[in-house]
Amino acid sequence: MRIDNLQYAKWSEKVFRQMREGQVDAVHVTIAYHENFRETVLNIEQWNRWFEQFPDLIMQARTAADVDHAKATGRTAIIFGAQNPSPIEDDIGLVEILHSLGLRFMQLSYNNQSLLATGCYEATDPGITRMGRQVIREMNRVGLVVDMSHSADRSTIEAADLSTRPITITHANPHDWHPALRNKSGDVIRAVVENGGMFGFSIYPHHLRGGTACTLTDFCEMIARMADTYGTAHFGLGTDLCQDQPDSVVEWMRVGRWSKEIDYGEGSASAPGFPPMPAWFNDNRDFGKIEAGLAAVGMNKAEVAGIMGGNWYRFYAENFDPL
Amino acid sequence: MRIDNLQYAKWSEKVFRQMREGQVDAVHVTIAYHENFRETVLNIEQWNRWFEQFPDLIMQARTAADVDHAKATGRTAIIFGAQNPSPIEDDIGLVEILHSLGLRFMQLSYNNQSLLATGCYEATDPGITRMGRQVIREMNRVGLVVDMSHSADRSTIEAADLSTRPITITHANPHDWHPALRNKSGDVIRAVVENGGMFGFSIYPHHLRGGTACTLTDFCEMIARMADTYGTAHFGLGTDLCQDQPDSVVEWMRVGRWSKEIDYGEGSASAPGFPPMPAWFNDNRDFGKIEAGLAAVGMNKAEVAGIMGGNWYRFYAENFDPL
Repeated sequence: MRIDNLQYAKWSEKVFRQMREGQVDAVHVTIAYHENFRETVLNIEQWNRWFEQFPDLIMQARTAADVDHAKATGRTAIIFGAQNPSPIEDDIGLVEILHSLGLRFMQLSYNNQSLLATGCYEATDPGITRMGRQVIREMNRVGLVVDMSHSADRSTIEAADLSTRPITITHANPHDWHPALRNKSGDVIRAVVENGGMFGFSIYPHHLRGGTACTLTDFCEMIARMADTYGTAHFGLGTDLCQDQPDSVVEWMRVGRWSKEIDYGEGSASAPGFPPMPAWFNDNRDFGKIEAGLAAVGMNKAEVAGIMGGNWYRFYAENFDPL
Repeated sequence: MRIDNLQYAKWSEKVFRQMREGQVDAVHVTIAYHENFRETVLNIEQWNRWFEQFPDLIMQARTAADVDHAKATGRTAIIFGAQNPSPIEDDIGLVEILHSLGLRFMQLSYNNQSLLATGCYEATDPGITRMGRQVIREMNRVGLVVDMSHSADRSTIEAADLSTRPITITHANPHDWHPALRNKSGDVIRAVVENGGMFGFSIYPHHLRGGTACTLTDFCEMIARMADTYGTAHFGLGTDLCQDQPDSVVEWMRVGRWSKEIDYGEGSASAPGFPPMPAWFNDNRDFGKIEAGLAAVGMNKAEVAGIMGGNWYRFYAENFDPL
């Protein structure tokens, strides 16, 4: 089983064919960064057209069983997620509505303060809000997974405590490997992975030691070390692949409609766009290289299978259904 | 199996308990008259809260198998429908979105001209529109059933011809029994029931011969005559029960936001509100009386079972899934 638990490509037949070529059984795709409810529904409508246009390549998955079905029929399962709670607006009832439409992951904040939690770029993190507590409970009830990838530390640790079901960081790396603002401290990783939570390793160059120049070996050794420290079962991939996107999209991710000024996020004025990917991971056809890389740094077959998708699959089976 | 294929009560625990007392296995409930997409979603959110509050009495059904599950667990299956295409606004992509949220019936027009078809109160009926043709094809594809209860004759006959799946008139009676504007001519009934379509008999007093004074025997004799003429398999109940609703609701049904003037619809200035129900059908506890009434006018056991719910159940099994 190969699963990538975070991508936001400029989707196209080419990308879907590459998923098949790379034998990727499931991809968690971002369908909202700053979109409100109606805009998120428009994005789902676009996905519905792709499902109709490319029925031999992709299908929507709402459950682990759907992932099995996709695999059995030679297709890639597409799982919807939101990187921001903007799709639920100020309406807790939209949690269940979006779950009905297939949403399975939702970040409680994206860089900034949200109605629910604090983002990792805010100066102060007062923790999970009043509405946030209600929404976590509702997400637990319906089977919508809490993702804290872009949230601040206190909010993340509080979310892990408040949530009665395991939470996730779908795409990041350890801060002690590469001290990027988006990478996570040991305290945060521990809070997430205890109680069955999952952590997905990112290949977004700003999250990599050495950036674009990071080697496959360095990346895989970091994974092996994390597996040794916290237990392999808690880890998988969340590459953050943003293939074929124009720079205007990274600007939308960072600025949305919340600012009239440019915010460079993890970039800078001199490097405002998407950084080039490392040579060993350009698109969905490159998952075999990671699999080989993990074996090369000494992980055994079962451990490699877990990181490549087995762990996410097990997590889906336990966390996508209503309580 | 007892199924009522149209109700719009002022829903409450009392009504849900009466459904159980009346052994009603499934009810098609109206969730939109003039509501746009977002307002329809708010109505679904309200239903989700009722499903959460009364899990021993009701559950949402999206398939015939869900109706079986409701029956097996002693609950009433709730099936969503819209009496107007207002929930899809001008966006064909919302057909699949609403199907994902559980919508299983949608009228192409409600009394007035819509973007798709003509309503039964318009002076002229130019037939199914350009968008209407596209939407019928999309409804066929995803498994959202066309309902023409409040549409005009030409539009209804064209919809039956254009649709590749059976269509319905969920709640009406024959015009030659009681010549109300909303009751249907033989040509319309024939167009709908051939190709496997279904027709549900209404107990809304304006649709009954003699109105509130209509007897159970007269109603059941009309059903038996229709069954003889067109074949029993095409008929079921769609009572149009609007229990406990204030008169402001009948005004919303008739006027929505489309007029600043009062429109009395099937009522009149002297009788603008909901007319009283006939003595033999006041709420969900009265279905046994209809069952006995049908037997009393000479229908055999299998025929009665079909009218009481078996025919709708079979229709659900064949028409709620994507092609």
